[in-house]
Amino acid sequence: MRPIPSASQPAVTAAHDKFLSTRETTVALCRTLQTEDYVVQSMPDVSPAKWHLAHTTWFFEHFVLEPHLQGYRSPDPAYNYLFNSYYYTVGAMHARPERGLLSRPTVAEVMAYRAHIDKHVVRLLENENAGIDALVTLGINHEQQHQELLLTDIKHVFSVNPLKPAWRELDASPSSPSQPLAFVGRDAATVEIGHAGAGFCFDNETPRHNALLVPHAIADRLVTNGEYREFVRDGGYEMPELWLSDGWATVRQQNWRRPLYWNDALEAEFTLGGMRDIDPNAPVSHVSYFEADAYARWAGARLPAETEWESLAAEQVIDGNLLEAGRFHPAGTESTGLRQLFGDVWEWTSSPYVSYPGFKPLAGSLGEYNGKFMCNQMVLRGGSCVTPRSHIRATYRNFFPPHARWQFSGIRLARDL
Amino acid sequence: MRPIPSASQPAVTAAHDKFLSTRETTVALCRTLQTEDYVVQSMPDVSPAKWHLAHTTWFFEHFVLEPHLQGYRSPDPAYNYLFNSYYYTVGAMHARPERGLLSRPTVAEVMAYRAHIDKHVVRLLENENAGIDALVTLGINHEQQHQELLLTDIKHVFSVNPLKPAWRELDASPSSPSQPLAFVGRDAATVEIGHAGAGFCFDNETPRHNALLVPHAIADRLVTNGEYREFVRDGGYEMPELWLSDGWATVRQQNWRRPLYWNDALEAEFTLGGMRDIDPNAPVSHVSYFEADAYARWAGARLPAETEWESLAAEQVIDGNLLEAGRFHPAGTESTGLRQLFGDVWEWTSSPYVSYPGFKPLAGSLGEYNGKFMCNQMVLRGGSCVTPRSHIRATYRNFFPPHARWQFSGIRLARDL
Amino acid sequence: MRPIPSASQPAVTAAHDKFLSTRETTVALCRTLQTEDYVVQSMPDVSPAKWHLAHTTWFFEHFVLEPHLQGYRSPDPAYNYLFNSYYYTVGAMHARPERGLLSRPTVAEVMAYRAHIDKHVVRLLENENAGIDALVTLGINHEQQHQELLLTDIKHVFSVNPLKPAWRELDASPSSPSQPLAFVGRDAATVEIGHAGAGFCFDNETPRHNALLVPHAIADRLVTNGEYREFVRDGGYEMPELWLSDGWATVRQQNWRRPLYWNDALEAEFTLGGMRDIDPNAPVSHVSYFEADAYARWAGARLPAETEWESLAAEQVIDGNLLEAGRFHPAGTESTGLRQLFGDVWEWTSSPYVSYPGFKPLAGSLGEYNGKFMCNQMVLRGGSCVTPRSHIRATYRNFFPPHARWQFSGIRLARDL
Amino acid sequence: MRPIPSASQPAVTAAHDKFLSTRETTVALCRTLQTEDYVVQSMPDVSPAKWHLAHTTWFFEHFVLEPHLQGYRSPDPAYNYLFNSYYYTVGAMHARPERGLLSRPTVAEVMAYRAHIDKHVVRLLENENAGIDALVTLGINHEQQHQELLLTDIKHVFSVNPLKPAWRELDASPSSPSQPLAFVGRDAATVEIGHAGAGFCFDNETPRHNALLVPHAIADRLVTNGEYREFVRDGGYEMPELWLSDGWATVRQQNWRRPLYWNDALEAEFTLGGMRDIDPNAPVSHVSYFEADAYARWAGARLPAETEWESLAAEQVIDGNLLEAGRFHPAGTESTGLRQLFGDVWEWTSSPYVSYPGFKPLAGSLGEYNGKFMCNQMVLRGGSCVTPRSHIRATYRNFFPPHARWQFSGIRLARDL
Repeated sequence: MRPIPSASQPAVTAAHDKFLSTRETTVALCRTLQTEDYVVQSMPDVSPAKWHLAHTTWFFEHFVLEPHLQGYRSPDPAYNYLFNSYYYTVGAMHARPERGLLSRPTVAEVMAYRAHIDKHVVRLLENENAGIDALVTLGINHEQQHQELLLTDIKHVFSVNPLKPAWRELDASPSSPSQPLAFVGRDAATVEIGHAGAGFCFDNETPRHNALLVPHAIADRLVTNGEYREFVRDGGYEMPELWLSDGWATVRQQNWRRPLYWNDALEAEFTLGGMRDIDPNAPVSHVSYFEADAYARWAGARLPAETEWESLAAEQVIDGNLLEAGRFHPAGTESTGLRQLFGDVWEWTSSPYVSYPGFKPLAGSLGEYNGKFMCNQMVLRGGSCVTPRSHIRATYRNFFPPHARWQFSGIRLARDL
Repeated sequence: MRPIPSASQPAVTAAHDKFLSTRETTVALCRTLQTEDYVVQSMPDVSPAKWHLAHTTWFFEHFVLEPHLQGYRSPDPAYNYLFNSYYYTVGAMHARPERGLLSRPTVAEVMAYRAHIDKHVVRLLENENAGIDALVTLGINHEQQHQELLLTDIKHVFSVNPLKPAWRELDASPSSPSQPLAFVGRDAATVEIGHAGAGFCFDNETPRHNALLVPHAIADRLVTNGEYREFVRDGGYEMPELWLSDGWATVRQQNWRRPLYWNDALEAEFTLGGMRDIDPNAPVSHVSYFEADAYARWAGARLPAETEWESLAAEQVIDGNLLEAGRFHPAGTESTGLRQLFGDVWEWTSSPYVSYPGFKPLAGSLGEYNGKFMCNQMVLRGGSCVTPRSHIRATYRNFFPPHARWQFSGIRLARDL
Repeated sequence: MRPIPSASQPAVTAAHDKFLSTRETTVALCRTLQTEDYVVQSMPDVSPAKWHLAHTTWFFEHFVLEPHLQGYRSPDPAYNYLFNSYYYTVGAMHARPERGLLSRPTVAEVMAYRAHIDKHVVRLLENENAGIDALVTLGINHEQQHQELLLTDIKHVFSVNPLKPAWRELDASPSSPSQPLAFVGRDAATVEIGHAGAGFCFDNETPRHNALLVPHAIADRLVTNGEYREFVRDGGYEMPELWLSDGWATVRQQNWRRPLYWNDALEAEFTLGGMRDIDPNAPVSHVSYFEADAYARWAGARLPAETEWESLAAEQVIDGNLLEAGRFHPAGTESTGLRQLFGDVWEWTSSPYVSYPGFKPLAGSLGEYNGKFMCNQMVLRGGSCVTPRSHIRATYRNFFPPHARWQFSGIRLARDL
Repeated sequence: MRPIPSASQPAVTAAHDKFLSTRETTVALCRTLQTEDYVVQSMPDVSPAKWHLAHTTWFFEHFVLEPHLQGYRSPDPAYNYLFNSYYYTVGAMHARPERGLLSRPTVAEVMAYRAHIDKHVVRLLENENAGIDALVTLGINHEQQHQELLLTDIKHVFSVNPLKPAWRELDASPSSPSQPLAFVGRDAATVEIGHAGAGFCFDNETPRHNALLVPHAIADRLVTNGEYREFVRDGGYEMPELWLSDGWATVRQQNWRRPLYWNDALEAEFTLGGMRDIDPNAPVSHVSYFEADAYARWAGARLPAETEWESLAAEQVIDGNLLEAGRFHPAGTESTGLRQLFGDVWEWTSSPYVSYPGFKPLAGSLGEYNGKFMCNQMVLRGGSCVTPRSHIRATYRNFFPPHARWQFSGIRLARDL
């Protein structure tokens, strides 16, 4: 959306550009929203678009401006209470399930808040001695996470509305037939896992460390809607022997019978472009870990461990159906070979989200960013069709509870050799 | 808001005017709302302002236009599903607690829906043979009920927002000192209760019938904030012997310690004009039946029966702090004598809401309007500071569950002689 | 179970006998229970048999012995906490829904507690100056209430057990065909309602006062299982227009489709004698107020007001299928004329449970006995097949919430004339 | 409890003895229970003692007798429904939270069921061609698990009773002062983990496989009550920065402020011998994973990984405060060196319960035994003071959800080097 900076630009300008382009992208994703759309919270996991716009702004205000810009004053001290997400060490906060009860501040006021913070961050970035580069980079990556959440959340908001509004008109042409699924065999090995080097990463990707691989095979593509539909039609949701105990309890309590956005007839699904026919060649999406695990068992396979995934992905170029592709929905592909590792859907792994050996969280309140969630969540890898390309990498660890379905989350199979 | 029709106007124009002025009043009450404010549902009892605007419109569409205007087509058939409140015999409806999940239709679309229906109702009213006068009158009275709910609901919506927004800037001057409370003695008698005559009434006010009064006395004014605060400070919320069993359970479950909108210090309260000092001479408001009953017991009194209230009020002129007074908040008065019967706050009676002997509900779906709520609710009388003057009368029976507090509901004492 | 006292017995001995025979009856009702059966609480409304045995004992201990027997000491001070039901002014108490979590005191210990209290009450009764007669009479009536509850509760406990145990072997012969239902017409009148005279009554039956009757008719017998089954087969549980709003919500939340103890096929029901065929001529039982009200609407009738019922029953001899009949289940009858007013099933009236004009509760903690429940409950009249004959009278007011079904509660129709 | 079999006994007799002695031990643990104690379920995680006695019996009936004893007939076919715990592939089952609603079958009937099954299993064991040895061994190990659960469950049942009954009179002498905690350093290594060889193990202990250890140190003893009390007094339960996100939510929802059975004053605790003073030198017990993790963070340490624990324990003799010690409560020790690895309390590890690489569950319904719980649970190691000695081994993997506290679960610290 902004011109690519030329190589001759000084560093300060580059930092400006990255900051401002990220901020502008967030707003651009809201372009088609009506004012009313910014307010609604359709379930506790979902946040209103307005909240995402304000919270990402608060992040810069609290972690960059307040400690580093002398004399800085917030336009409204109440924002610290309203837009702190979960940083208990920062102070009390507004309860998450009540974010949809706030009509004020208005969208216009939130946009003014954004402009206010942007102005001050830019000013501070112009001071080369401010020492805020790492924090601003963290803030940019944080905002990119919320760009994805903003889209998955508004998708859920629209999905519960009987009018089934579309976020945007999207290309609805079906994918080309997908090639048969094949498995890539891999030998036992000791591999290095985790991030190292100069680029940005989250603390949970460190430290880089050794891991053991057993002989295994991993699917060369994602499971498709068509394949998953076979599982549904075969009675997959009625066979307790396929499910983890907690998964089966969830299936029965929630009366799950298909992926989150599919209709009863298994023929149409809700998308960011409204209702449309299920594309049998596109990757299945919006399934929980429980469903991914049950599907794999039904298919005589298993899910990959995150070490298996990462050691494979580390060798690949980052490319795929990511945010910049402008599809905003998973897509099938005619190509062959190892594919779809990045983009389309986050891939559930069999790995609980735990710390790497020797993990040290960030100091201070930012230590709450990742570490405290290392319980009752599973790792997902690879990014989705609404993940910005500059945000994803082979070592990136996303995580959600095993019952979560409102993210673009899908399935890649693996098996023991 | 509209010029008073002159006496020489023909009947059709008068019906137009009443219809249109009611419809305009509803919209005028929303004048200060931001678009975002129309969307929020702060608890299941509350409906978003947008919903009130649409539901009252649907009422005219469904009960007036569809059966009486040949060839009428709704602008959107989904509205029948979205904006039916509780008429099961009409068909399936959107779940009440999920009204705040709907960003669409937008406020602008709802306003267009209103204009569309207004145009068609007016056209039908111009046809003197349409036979819709009684239905339109019912629709007008229905809309007036929602004018009150719209205000009590937006008050609740704003109250849960830590920013404590004001609906409007209101006169905040405290009331003059109230005169001492006196009791008006009344003898045993057989009285007639219920509506008779030509004017509009709801079905639940009929049939007019005899009732027995025992000798009793009834307070000449409402209980004030100052008096209720004494009850609170005396430990009223900690004395189980003052409370009904269900009331005490509610006090403990909900951790009630004061009227709904009072602050912890018992010094300020949330109003439609934002937070302001509690006016000790103004009537206490936003108390439940449980609290009214416990207060009366603490005060050595009881609540009046609805027959006692109505037989007394039948002799009074309808006047008081009603919607047209423009205060939008209960107010004290210096005057003496029997006062505050109409306006300020709805007065909890000791009477469960049941049918009058020989009651016949309206035919068809409109029979669901009142009768099916005749269980687990208590009768309130007299209207409040947000009740339109033309809407209230001595025979009017309002009703809410005994735990409800978000209406302008207060206390008048009585006692046996 | 005890010989009837001869007329020449002194008053003291008569009081002894009434006290002891009541206490023995309670124990006799438990004769067929296994030790394990005394422990279980199958839902919060139900109390374990052990608890009934201990609570009725505590009632005598707390209200008779402690204030009137100098130097009395409880065998275990913890019993005051464990076996106080709901007298907040007495002190803190064990939570009602947790009564089934107590394996101790054991049944044997509870029986020893009973013997201990019996001995001391008898000793006090022998002292003619003790002034405890009225309190003991209240205690006896209280215990009779718990005799009924003990049976309805153990019935529920056994009903949730897939083994469907019987409390006792009962006569299972079906009733003779019932005679057609007829209505008894009654004129408008002013009648006196409530208890007066020397015999025992509860405070809620006073004061006696005037009431108005409108012209009406009242059914000469109870609604039968066969008649109610027609309602079920006609789709009564699927027609929202028949139901009160709260009733319809309950039907859907609880998935009600038939009376509490009927099986899916509408052919068998659980009884104190185990599963047995539904007797089409016996009165329907275990229906809630919501169901009674819906049935009446379906039948083109209504439920009687409690004033209508009492003024009719006051003229009748107290006789019927009560506890002493030993049937422990409602029974049909071949007889004609006004019948089944006493016994078989408690009859739901259309009257919310409120105080009579001028009602004064008992002084002290006993004031909590009845008055504090006067909200959200409906009045039932006439006793059931498990009500002791000496316990029931025309003025007796029982009350339960409108959703309650585990009592022997049924339907008598009425209608306006 | 039974004489140790001499070496010259034939194999059949040895199998008899092991089977019968295990069955007798279960009954012996119930020796002090009153009949009422067998019935109660104090929370959904707890099962009544009666249920444990019957379920372990059903296990032999269903998995041994029905497939292997021709013509076998159950004494009551309903038992298959009532006493199946969670084997969905076997068929429908009674709901777990309702186990405390069953007064029947009685204790005597359950004991008769046990005798019936014992007789038939013994008969089958005498047939050397029956091929049931492996299944009986599994059943014995299964019953040993329920011996432990029976005790932890009855402890919970008694703990919620205000009378605080004791299961048995226990030795209440305090432990000798514990020696200072020291850490045992361990180098990076590749180790073998999991069970191999001829002895019994559960499927989840296989296959044996390689694992990597990082350099670390592990505490030579368990954390004591005295040490944990310092954490409580330091405000550990009020510092969100110490807790996992789900843990902090649980602390606030459940209002946790101390280990499960401690009193408010932090001076006494409920034990199987009733209330007694907290022994500061005994290991802390009845803490959840959340508390163990928070304590470790407060102490500047972490919990050990299960690979760290197992590789250390594999070198140790199995000895300690186990069931046969007859203490039934954790105890301190004067000794030094690596200690308390087995017995006293199960030790929370930092390892989520997942399958080992290449894991294959048992075939058929027994595959539901372990594998389906591999989600949202954490591994505990080492057994407790109520674990039979013959049941525990270094490779044994116990697992509970991170919020579970009613087991004897405690803390051993570790840290990175």
